[in-house]
Amino acid sequence: MPASNYPKRIWDAKTRARPELYKDGNNYWEAYNYKTSLDVSHTSVKDNVERIDSRKISLEQFRERFERPYKPVVITHDTDNWQACRKWTVPRLTKKYRNQRFKCGEDDDGYSVRIKMKYFTQYMRANSDDSPLYIFDGNFGEHRKKRKLLEDYRVSHLFPEDLFSLAGERRRPPYRWFVMGPGRSGTGIHIDPLGTSAWNALVRGHKRWCLFPIDAPKDLVKPAGIEASKQKGEAAAWFSCVYPRTQQADWPERWRPLEILQRPGETVFVPGGWWHVVLNLDDTVAVTQNFCSSVNFPTVWHKTKRGRPKMARKMLAELKRTRPDLAAVAESIDTSRPSGFHSSSSSSSSSSSSSSSSSSGSGDDSASSDSESGDSGVERTKKRRRESEQQASATNGVH
Amino acid sequence: MPASNYPKRIWDAKTRARPELYKDGNNYWEAYNYKTSLDVSHTSVKDNVERIDSRKISLEQFRERFERPYKPVVITHDTDNWQACRKWTVPRLTKKYRNQRFKCGEDDDGYSVRIKMKYFTQYMRANSDDSPLYIFDGNFGEHRKKRKLLEDYRVSHLFPEDLFSLAGERRRPPYRWFVMGPGRSGTGIHIDPLGTSAWNALVRGHKRWCLFPIDAPKDLVKPAGIEASKQKGEAAAWFSCVYPRTQQADWPERWRPLEILQRPGETVFVPGGWWHVVLNLDDTVAVTQNFCSSVNFPTVWHKTKRGRPKMARKMLAELKRTRPDLAAVAESIDTSRPSGFHSSSSSSSSSSSSSSSSSSGSGDDSASSDSESGDSGVERTKKRRRESEQQASATNGVH
Repeated sequence: MPASNYPKRIWDAKTRARPELYKDGNNYWEAYNYKTSLDVSHTSVKDNVERIDSRKISLEQFRERFERPYKPVVITHDTDNWQACRKWTVPRLTKKYRNQRFKCGEDDDGYSVRIKMKYFTQYMRANSDDSPLYIFDGNFGEHRKKRKLLEDYRVSHLFPEDLFSLAGERRRPPYRWFVMGPGRSGTGIHIDPLGTSAWNALVRGHKRWCLFPIDAPKDLVKPAGIEASKQKGEAAAWFSCVYPRTQQADWPERWRPLEILQRPGETVFVPGGWWHVVLNLDDTVAVTQNFCSSVNFPTVWHKTKRGRPKMARKMLAELKRTRPDLAAVAESIDTSRPSGFHSSSSSSSSSSSSSSSSSSGSGDDSASSDSESGDSGVERTKKRRRESEQQASATNGVH
Repeated sequence: MPASNYPKRIWDAKTRARPELYKDGNNYWEAYNYKTSLDVSHTSVKDNVERIDSRKISLEQFRERFERPYKPVVITHDTDNWQACRKWTVPRLTKKYRNQRFKCGEDDDGYSVRIKMKYFTQYMRANSDDSPLYIFDGNFGEHRKKRKLLEDYRVSHLFPEDLFSLAGERRRPPYRWFVMGPGRSGTGIHIDPLGTSAWNALVRGHKRWCLFPIDAPKDLVKPAGIEASKQKGEAAAWFSCVYPRTQQADWPERWRPLEILQRPGETVFVPGGWWHVVLNLDDTVAVTQNFCSSVNFPTVWHKTKRGRPKMARKMLAELKRTRPDLAAVAESIDTSRPSGFHSSSSSSSSSSSSSSSSSSGSGDDSASSDSESGDSGVERTKKRRRESEQQASATNGVH
């Protein structure tokens, strides 16, 4: 529908989340005509990632084959018995969470932009935007009504640990997101914060992924100039402008992307440090969580100690009580210097297509959150606190 | 402490839950002096049940080796990463759920007897009762504050299915219980309702179990006369009076009990149809769930169709939408006659030591709930509805 016909609440959310798309009296939301030109077919995805059956693999086998070697994989049948499979249809979500506000971006001041579910699903149906708004809600678990979503899914036996929980629910960074968006929405290329790994379980629709290993040069996978300027940082722009280059003869063979066509019921495991970009090919509903486990702990600890020193202190105290083995690991790590390992720059420009935040910050050990596994979702107050923590620690000058 | 010194709220709960222990002006709570005489040592448990490591077994392996052959097993390391391991100490539970009321029995009219956590933990510390009150709360998941407990544990990957959820949260029978009790409390011998299987995950303390296969004669494992009369149906009485007989030469070899000393962090799997009796050896905190999976579905369906016809109709409609394979199984089962399989009488005399309900009902396919995995927990209104459903179905004359 034309911009002028949007209900006020949708219009408000769009202008707050992406003010740069209404510059100089012009509307750039549909400027590239991706609705017609962007390839969202399944057939063009060169899916080259292994599948494993959740029912047939033990935690130990999974760690041996995938988590310890930091190898991405697609897990099937892990959501078989989730209530979400029945309950997370667009009509049922619209009905049940009708007047609940979900985060779909951030404004220029870092405040969350939220939209009621009933308006968002209306927008999903009708929009023609190049890179549409995208619900990426990181606080549903703490909200009186939205927390009902927690009952509809269950964390896999392959991801039993959640060491950041030791920092306490109030202090820990955002870690679980309810994500919902129409075709062409998505998350730009990024590395997840603090060295955390992630899983992304798709309940409805299809997602297209590209992943690059941690040693892929940033300038290669996230070139400064090439993305369509107004949609810079958006997944749609990446697949339109960067992906074709990865298929050319001059793209380094070792850094060809891993590609996934993620189908409903499939869960993508993203090891810490891997670059990834995700495009929704149609209406999708998913849940994603970032985590610190005993496997990625050394790297996560290093980054956390530098980027979130207060939280690290609280964690260490709890580790001593409950995981003395990991506390010993923590104390053996020299955090006075950058890790040099899995320390690819972590972009803090928000990668959710629905956010306009373009604050910089790409140093090693940045604590900024952004991911298909979520932009930070933190409130302004928390951001401020975190910034002062970082400044106090004097290890992270950027932000 | 002597009965007269109990705070009023504890006294009230005790007299409501076990009125028979205050007959004729006499107090029978400590009549058998089990505090001194009952053996709660670890060394006398002839633990003879296999252990498997949750981290090293896949769902398929578990089904092949245990669930399909209806073989009990103890699962280790399944609770390793539960917050409950840190949070479910008696002091922390007392603090966090201080004024929340937990069910610890039923009165003679079938109403729940509830007690505030702060009084119960006081009682746990101080009581000298033969078979103490026991929290067996089946609605914590639906309660505004108590539901926080849900965040502290996670259902194992070995029990991913919960087919009764298809009946809807309001219609389904109680299925998850928060259980907490002092030494000597426990659950008398019984078979879980509707052919469901159960898991019981112990977070604190030690439990002693005996299990008997489904073909063990009721008169053998639950003899009418032998249990100490005032504590009839209680686990303490069973271990005091019946267990010694199971060790004598004249007890049939094939029906010697499986025995378990369940330690903190261990999860007992109880296949449908198995008799079991559970005694707390010290202060325990646990969570237990009963479930219908695709493995026990044929038996559960048979009993549900006969005992809960309305719920069965709702389930079948949902199965047709989401599990057509199981819907086909359901429709192929002749429920006009007793199953004759896994159909040992299901006792409806409440087996939680904290309940005095002695309503009868021991026919095949009884829908009455009772278990270490819970006494029914249903409210009186629900009980009435259920009774009329049963009468309408005319397949279950007892109650």
